[in-house]
Amino acid sequence: MRKEKREELIKYIDELRWISKEDSKNEKSFVTIIPREFKLNNGMIIKREQILKNGNDGSAVIIIPKVGNEFLVNIEPRVFTNTKVAVGFPAGYIENGETPEHAALRELREETGYVSHKFILLDSFYQDEGVSAAYNYIYLANDCEHLYPQELDKDEIVRYMTFNYDELLELEHDGYLSGANSKLALCRYKERR
Amino acid sequence: MRKEKREELIKYIDELRWISKEDSKNEKSFVTIIPREFKLNNGMIIKREQILKNGNDGSAVIIIPKVGNEFLVNIEPRVFTNTKVAVGFPAGYIENGETPEHAALRELREETGYVSHKFILLDSFYQDEGVSAAYNYIYLANDCEHLYPQELDKDEIVRYMTFNYDELLELEHDGYLSGANSKLALCRYKERR
Repeated sequence: MRKEKREELIKYIDELRWISKEDSKNEKSFVTIIPREFKLNNGMIIKREQILKNGNDGSAVIIIPKVGNEFLVNIEPRVFTNTKVAVGFPAGYIENGETPEHAALRELREETGYVSHKFILLDSFYQDEGVSAAYNYIYLANDCEHLYPQELDKDEIVRYMTFNYDELLELEHDGYLSGANSKLALCRYKERR
Repeated sequence: MRKEKREELIKYIDELRWISKEDSKNEKSFVTIIPREFKLNNGMIIKREQILKNGNDGSAVIIIPKVGNEFLVNIEPRVFTNTKVAVGFPAGYIENGETPEHAALRELREETGYVSHKFILLDSFYQDEGVSAAYNYIYLANDCEHLYPQELDKDEIVRYMTFNYDELLELEHDGYLSGANSKLALCRYKERR
């Protein structure tokens, strides 16, 4: 990895790691659970609990943004992981009434200020099919341009930077890029090369 | 796909689809949520909710079982998906104090009655890093033998069958194999071939 890229990455990781945690009363819960009972065609009755995020399925988009020959990735607090901070492709939840492609355009712009007019759907999949209806879409975004400022939600903090392809593979190998969504996205990109 | 394989698959899918659902009071919730507050190294305070499954992180194993030149896959009710039933590799949650490899051996035996003595770790990853500490392990299990009866939990129903490699790709292409875990597992297997 280029020396300046490693230094920039380490700086963000140090900035975004958590140093203390406590339980919190959440006035309004983002994640909610609905217990349901299903009768199967074979007569069997099974119970399953459905995870909702913000009252929705939690379907999301993952974007692989190309800026020239480099790839844009986010560095974000991932408070439940061992590393506390992780690298991943820009991603976010699809809002009500929004098409997946529009969500991809919006999330990329909000999280990084970059836009693209060349979104290519690479794959789609259930994120956690046993307990959720969340269905995710992976887009390749070519020829990204930096036209807007970042527009983050309260409680959201995103640093971003670019890496070349070999460095992306190195980030995965070294465990910085470690989430299912980004790993599957990288797989699909590899298969297209 | 071989005609007899398609017929067997369709039979299981018809058996396992749900025909009616209702809300249920769950005495004891399998999925639970813990709201937490984290102070970052940069001084910012962020709230995140952690999803627990059965009181644990929800870390799981995914097994790619090879029986001769064929692959063993499960057909299970996936009540929240559009298809209601999905094909996927055997998988399950790691129990307290269990190593991932032992969990893989146990889950494969419980769900299918097959055992293997050749488990090869292909990859590991965070399943939903924004809201969970679940860390999953993908194993290739070579030379599987059918030595035991199925041993399922109450509320669990698993049909299994074998497909060749081309049929696996066809199952993914046709949307039968549609979950992140199985898709990433298949990716990793492809890369090794």
